[in-house]
Amino acid sequence: MTHTSTPLLGGIEAGGTKFVCAVGYPPDNIYALEQFPTTTPRETLGRTLDFFRSQPHLPDAIGIATFGPADVRPTSNTYGFITSTPKPGWRNTDLVGFVERSLYLPAAFDTDVNGAAVGEHAWGAGQDVDNLLYLSVGTGFGGGAIVEGVPVHGLVHPEMGHLNLPRANGDDFKGHCPYHGPCLEGMASGPAIKARWGIPAESLPPDHTAWEFEAHYLSLAVTNLILTLSPERVIMGGGVMQQEHLFPAIRSRVQSYLNDYVQADAIIRGIDNYIVPPGLGDRAGVLGAMGLALSL
Amino acid sequence: MTHTSTPLLGGIEAGGTKFVCAVGYPPDNIYALEQFPTTTPRETLGRTLDFFRSQPHLPDAIGIATFGPADVRPTSNTYGFITSTPKPGWRNTDLVGFVERSLYLPAAFDTDVNGAAVGEHAWGAGQDVDNLLYLSVGTGFGGGAIVEGVPVHGLVHPEMGHLNLPRANGDDFKGHCPYHGPCLEGMASGPAIKARWGIPAESLPPDHTAWEFEAHYLSLAVTNLILTLSPERVIMGGGVMQQEHLFPAIRSRVQSYLNDYVQADAIIRGIDNYIVPPGLGDRAGVLGAMGLALSL
Repeated sequence: MTHTSTPLLGGIEAGGTKFVCAVGYPPDNIYALEQFPTTTPRETLGRTLDFFRSQPHLPDAIGIATFGPADVRPTSNTYGFITSTPKPGWRNTDLVGFVERSLYLPAAFDTDVNGAAVGEHAWGAGQDVDNLLYLSVGTGFGGGAIVEGVPVHGLVHPEMGHLNLPRANGDDFKGHCPYHGPCLEGMASGPAIKARWGIPAESLPPDHTAWEFEAHYLSLAVTNLILTLSPERVIMGGGVMQQEHLFPAIRSRVQSYLNDYVQADAIIRGIDNYIVPPGLGDRAGVLGAMGLALSL
Repeated sequence: MTHTSTPLLGGIEAGGTKFVCAVGYPPDNIYALEQFPTTTPRETLGRTLDFFRSQPHLPDAIGIATFGPADVRPTSNTYGFITSTPKPGWRNTDLVGFVERSLYLPAAFDTDVNGAAVGEHAWGAGQDVDNLLYLSVGTGFGGGAIVEGVPVHGLVHPEMGHLNLPRANGDDFKGHCPYHGPCLEGMASGPAIKARWGIPAESLPPDHTAWEFEAHYLSLAVTNLILTLSPERVIMGGGVMQQEHLFPAIRSRVQSYLNDYVQADAIIRGIDNYIVPPGLGDRAGVLGAMGLALSL
């Protein structure tokens, strides 16, 4: 193996449910990977440290793709922190400081979904475009965006999970988001599906009404995001999108909502290659974290 | 006057209702400006040509900020064209080719709202930020976005006027958009207001129910756009926004919809300086066109 021209990268996918740590030369040669549940910061960051310290070679840089809200503005005093999360114990946790001070390594930092967008752009389903959207539908709904090759941050970072959308006909669910009730995440995330039907998403049969409603909210969200960001590709991952029947349902509804108003072959004729699953599969998260380190 | 270090700029604000042409050193020294109604391409572009040819000095470059849809991708065969517009006679009109071949000048080209966003960023209400949104509420609803200093294009260009939003309580208007019925533009543009109430927006008193509905749709749109693009400032112009009472109504509803979820002082404490009218007033359009020429 010769990797003299490429740096050895580390990645930390800091998820609300689990942490995934990796070292290697992405995308193909990830020679060490470990995952463990997200418990307290002390225990979880301790295991993270143990993972990297047990490697024969420390990476040249580490990328951190984190759950949020997080402070991703490099000029801010609290850059690198998880900020106002409701997750117990994690409020105001300094992830970049942790990596820099315990491993003496440079760290890049972004949201989990921006990380996944960066990874898909570098090695996955978005390699041929510079404007893309990565959406994760699972325990929440997250959206990361790349515009002209650069992840979108702005004032804080996008929070696409909390969009306001028209209700589906006959849907009177009050919504599951503690902040907004029936926002997108409150209607269409995995926990919202379970709260509404009393059955976890993965146990609902494909012909259940739940999937009609799910396709409604997800396709309206994708339509609005296309109208706002004009992405060249929309990549949809996360646990709920493991239900592959959602893809054709979303594609046809998006075409129907747009009604040929956006005159783009990619949407009108090529939508099967426009709204797609992640090219990196379930490694999108940790590879995305490693992708962030490329910017250092 | 000394302007030796700055180029002499021309601007064409190509609106669906009127064209505005200007020459000068923006923002303060616009020494020639003319506007005329948008009729046929032959007549309208003829008057545009006459304007520039009658100047003592031709500008160094011309920026064109146009109604759409338009092809703003420099690598495309039809770059510089107005494309699939329903406006009679204007489909497939080559505006960049017109300027280059009749005036032998370099031309920059973007949507009217991206132009206004560029102008506000250069000289108006967005000079201190690099991520901003410019929304125009008038004969249509248009949105231009700047992300890290660069106007958003992507696949085509944003079409924020056609967002799908929840209806206001008690609102059963079928909507005025020929493509989407009750989309944002179909519910909240000037012509939609007139179609719904039978009275033009400018003649409706400030306590008319129309403004409750208008504030509903505009504030939901702004909320969704903040959640998607995370702008550092939202600038709202256009004929409908001449109704100044809309600003406090939109600001308070946006705060209420977001419900402190986006933890940013700019929104929670500083919203009067976050959702604002254009700094360039009704010159935002033509100054924006001139601003586009700065990129040449």
